[in-house]
Amino acid sequence: MANIRALVFDVFGTVVDWRGGVAREAEKFLKRHAADALDPGVFADAWRARYQPAMEEMRSGRRPFTRLDVLHRENLEAILPEMGIDLEDVAEDELAALNLAWHRLDPWPDAVAGLQRLKRGFIIAPLSNGNVILMLDMAKRAGLPWDAILGAEVAGACKPSPQAYLRTVDILGMSPGEVMMVAAHNSDLAAARRCGLKTAFVARPREHGPEQTSDLVPLEDWDISVGSFLELAEALGV
Amino acid sequence: MANIRALVFDVFGTVVDWRGGVAREAEKFLKRHAADALDPGVFADAWRARYQPAMEEMRSGRRPFTRLDVLHRENLEAILPEMGIDLEDVAEDELAALNLAWHRLDPWPDAVAGLQRLKRGFIIAPLSNGNVILMLDMAKRAGLPWDAILGAEVAGACKPSPQAYLRTVDILGMSPGEVMMVAAHNSDLAAARRCGLKTAFVARPREHGPEQTSDLVPLEDWDISVGSFLELAEALGV
Repeated sequence: MANIRALVFDVFGTVVDWRGGVAREAEKFLKRHAADALDPGVFADAWRARYQPAMEEMRSGRRPFTRLDVLHRENLEAILPEMGIDLEDVAEDELAALNLAWHRLDPWPDAVAGLQRLKRGFIIAPLSNGNVILMLDMAKRAGLPWDAILGAEVAGACKPSPQAYLRTVDILGMSPGEVMMVAAHNSDLAAARRCGLKTAFVARPREHGPEQTSDLVPLEDWDISVGSFLELAEALGV
Repeated sequence: MANIRALVFDVFGTVVDWRGGVAREAEKFLKRHAADALDPGVFADAWRARYQPAMEEMRSGRRPFTRLDVLHRENLEAILPEMGIDLEDVAEDELAALNLAWHRLDPWPDAVAGLQRLKRGFIIAPLSNGNVILMLDMAKRAGLPWDAILGAEVAGACKPSPQAYLRTVDILGMSPGEVMMVAAHNSDLAAARRCGLKTAFVARPREHGPEQTSDLVPLEDWDISVGSFLELAEALGV
């Protein structure tokens, strides 16, 4: 642990509450389109459900690297008809504004204070599949004090491809054991561990709403397993 | 001007005093090697003089993109014999430590306060040919409050190639006119302007030491020409 020099973070679910944030903006949108019988949380889930299949297109090489902002937009246009909303009834600027909901997500209550503390001892940066300007807009609005914006766009590869982790480590000029991946998702940590990174699990039991069943507990003996970023700072001695 | 959303900065010479910082570390090194008859500022100049030729190897395509840390090391090994120091007499860890002098440069006196102020109104990021970990180490040590680390390594192209500017603008999800290049070098601003970026000249008349003759004044009608980052903040109304 004494060797760790940088902490890299999953963001959607680990640092910010994507479901709550997207639902908050979707609620107004659904009302405007007389679709407020729909639960905005379910709308957020449907939008997010198309995320992994879109990533898989890239990871498999069937599609070149594409920014998450572009994938979010495609996925939004795909789900609206499923929700009974005719795309023809939605103005372009309304679609563009709703797509930016992902730039305006709120951090979990401990995230900003925890990151500020961790930043004193380590380089801190997102290692997200979100693109740079998405991460930047989110950080400016929420006050996330990143030292740098790393991740899929900078590495040119999406998690959990090994290249996403290894290229990030290489850009940091470090060895994998000097970098710790922080995530609320066991699968992300498993992929990082296979690349030699240190791992920290932070439980986020409400990421998927009140009835979450996945990632409630650590599924491997991660280097650290905690319930908040403040506990992570404590465990790392900063 | 009202459209500007991001400010991107040249770093060596514009944000930090590379000559003074390298000379400070070289002085100790030269003493250890009984070469303290040499002016450490001249040593810094000789090291830096090999920077543009090394960049040109990449810009011309004769060499693939290579991190500045690697180029600095090659250039250091090239100048030591010229300075009368036998490479065989220098331990590997001493060379590595001296090479990191570029990670430990001090900001000009107005830089940190100016960036803190500019950060309130704009996304601020380096657009330097320095690599990411060089910029990160420098920022952590000096307290440079960047929102992100952009530049040659992220863009995969060196200034003043158009790709260095245009890919950075693209990563920011903006149009060129929404991004302002801030530099103490007229040539950097000229290249940025050709790509459609806005331009701000900040005079740094001691970058090359007391007898500087270049870049003392703006050579074109840049959008803004000032003498410090605080004046830049004033001019931008933040």
